[in-house]
Amino acid sequence: MTASLLLRNVHPYAGKAVDLLIENGRIAQIGANLSAPAGVAIEDGKGEIVIPGLVEAHTHLDKSLLGLPWYTNEVGPKLLDKIDNERMNKKRLDIDPARQSARQSILSSLKGTTHIRSHVDVDTEHGMWGVEGVMQTRDAYRDIVDIELVAFPQSGLLRRRGTLELMDQAMQAGCEIVGGLDPCTIDRDPKGHLDAVFGLCQRYGKPLDIHLHEPGEVGAFSLDLIIERTRALGMTGKVTVSHAFCLGTPDPALIDPLIEELAVLDIAIMTTAPASRPAPPVKKLLQAGVRVCSGSDGIRDTWSPYGNADMLERAMFVGLRNNFRRDDEVRLALDVCTTEGAKVMEIEGYGLEVGCVADLILLPTESIAEAVATRPPQRRVIKRGKIVARDGVSIRTAP
Amino acid sequence: MTASLLLRNVHPYAGKAVDLLIENGRIAQIGANLSAPAGVAIEDGKGEIVIPGLVEAHTHLDKSLLGLPWYTNEVGPKLLDKIDNERMNKKRLDIDPARQSARQSILSSLKGTTHIRSHVDVDTEHGMWGVEGVMQTRDAYRDIVDIELVAFPQSGLLRRRGTLELMDQAMQAGCEIVGGLDPCTIDRDPKGHLDAVFGLCQRYGKPLDIHLHEPGEVGAFSLDLIIERTRALGMTGKVTVSHAFCLGTPDPALIDPLIEELAVLDIAIMTTAPASRPAPPVKKLLQAGVRVCSGSDGIRDTWSPYGNADMLERAMFVGLRNNFRRDDEVRLALDVCTTEGAKVMEIEGYGLEVGCVADLILLPTESIAEAVATRPPQRRVIKRGKIVARDGVSIRTAP
Repeated sequence: MTASLLLRNVHPYAGKAVDLLIENGRIAQIGANLSAPAGVAIEDGKGEIVIPGLVEAHTHLDKSLLGLPWYTNEVGPKLLDKIDNERMNKKRLDIDPARQSARQSILSSLKGTTHIRSHVDVDTEHGMWGVEGVMQTRDAYRDIVDIELVAFPQSGLLRRRGTLELMDQAMQAGCEIVGGLDPCTIDRDPKGHLDAVFGLCQRYGKPLDIHLHEPGEVGAFSLDLIIERTRALGMTGKVTVSHAFCLGTPDPALIDPLIEELAVLDIAIMTTAPASRPAPPVKKLLQAGVRVCSGSDGIRDTWSPYGNADMLERAMFVGLRNNFRRDDEVRLALDVCTTEGAKVMEIEGYGLEVGCVADLILLPTESIAEAVATRPPQRRVIKRGKIVARDGVSIRTAP
Repeated sequence: MTASLLLRNVHPYAGKAVDLLIENGRIAQIGANLSAPAGVAIEDGKGEIVIPGLVEAHTHLDKSLLGLPWYTNEVGPKLLDKIDNERMNKKRLDIDPARQSARQSILSSLKGTTHIRSHVDVDTEHGMWGVEGVMQTRDAYRDIVDIELVAFPQSGLLRRRGTLELMDQAMQAGCEIVGGLDPCTIDRDPKGHLDAVFGLCQRYGKPLDIHLHEPGEVGAFSLDLIIERTRALGMTGKVTVSHAFCLGTPDPALIDPLIEELAVLDIAIMTTAPASRPAPPVKKLLQAGVRVCSGSDGIRDTWSPYGNADMLERAMFVGLRNNFRRDDEVRLALDVCTTEGAKVMEIEGYGLEVGCVADLILLPTESIAEAVATRPPQRRVIKRGKIVARDGVSIRTAP
């Protein structure tokens, strides 16, 4: 936990070569030809790029089928088909949240992720099973990755009696964030849903991270209600809206006033940069001063077979989705998966300056854009000054 | 060229395990416990999946920067910015078509591609440089991949005097396909452009593969002109429209009549499944009976830093772009990158039946969907019965 290390010959953000001295898990010195204090190990950076650890700001650690037999997906097309299918089959498919979240966390870590925000299902079928399992992983794998939990009413909050009480229980158990989901189209009661989740935020003094898949005008309506409550309750800087497909509507008259409000109230946006849905315009949001983060969402689960926990690949998706081709644009895509994600998760001491926590990743490429475009499997991952993965092999073993 | 091989214990399309006897480069027998004729090598399939070789139906072998120093992209946003930037810098950046096409062809092959259709620039600045270079690669690497050339007027056909004569020269030199580009928005003379390229097709008895980036109504207009000429000239089954972003317009009144005509005249569609542009609806096209293929387009070039020549990854992009989540849908995405591509390229003897050419790829996954979603680097690639790559290492060395 308090590792020291001298990292020789690395290029911060592909800039000029430096040495980096890490003491007690934090960056102590950056400079040329640093000398190693007695007993401090030296790692040859080999002239590679160094960037801060990748930030997985939206996933579902409790859902993955990693390591289980292949699941043949025959699920219906609607959101509720996927929700109901998952809830009804979770036990049968042996999706044990403790085991599965451990598997995914190790995979994330070895690909360079140092921080994860995980939504965790809370429903009347499984109660605290998910929350307890992911908390077990959070504690057991603290040496390789930091995990925070969002209590997530995946099956709806009001439409299934008893869920709100379980959400309350999840917050008492120590979830860091209150979750929510499509106030109009799932609970079909936007006022009721938003009053309930904002109520939990108020009660526990915690931030909100709400899923909003609702498209176009209906999503804009829900977003407006979220904005209204954020302002009224003084929750500036404490709300994230995940997905926000509505912001991908090609209608500036609908979108621009919303973006202005997001900036004023410092409401963050999470986008997976989906190829098949309208998606929030990343550059426009960043230019407006809105924090934008990204995440893998579900990884190989009953919802979809895709996903590999690689946030460098996610940065590529952000680049592809937003037609980022120039190097300075591709850098924005990486920022979304690093520094911007850190701002959304309010990670203390994140970055590459002296004094920052030494959560780092070394990449054997010439440029940032090359790292994003090629996603090299050769990576060294450093967590609090300790090397926790090399070339796809973690120091921890998956259960 | 006439290799024989007994492939033991493989699962065609993840079906039941069989042995596969290859004689003189073709599949001679498929069955249980086949015996190896004298002198025939045996390869243990290890229970892996076998599918036919991947088909790269749209790339630009002459453009890639693979193996060259990182190119910092600072190019402007318009299509013409990219076209002019490339033409003006090709020599300066040392993008030698022979060397670069060899590099990309080897990369494609080791990832499982057995057939490539490459558009090759023909312009007044570089003349036959591209065509000659890619032809050199086609001949020199015939043992690992089959390459066909499209003579491609990248900088426009009529707007730059002398290009049409060069296109003629390229066809005489042996290009298999006539190319074209955005008749309205680049040449600004749709009748002139289309008469010219269809004229070349008539003169040389060759098919057409035309780039059509034009969006919405203008793309639909150009497509209608292409349809008209295909019918009038009796070129049923001999035309491919690449990109066809206009078919991604969410307006059935505009799109459906066009799709009907495409089916009647057997005009094929190539889509890279772009995340940032409207894209042809793959399932709808296939269901209408339209042949649909895919390709990497440019790979790490002056246009964009992305691309790795992996057509399994491209199948994933097709899946993600079209929201294919069910296993049967993901299979469609693979089909587009294999059998459908083979239909578009009219590849003789393509497939997994007895008598087919043994162009195969072995994948260590449980299912087709898993192969597409995970894109495992462990692959064995077989070209005409000979193993040409194992786990990312080709039998050929890049120049």
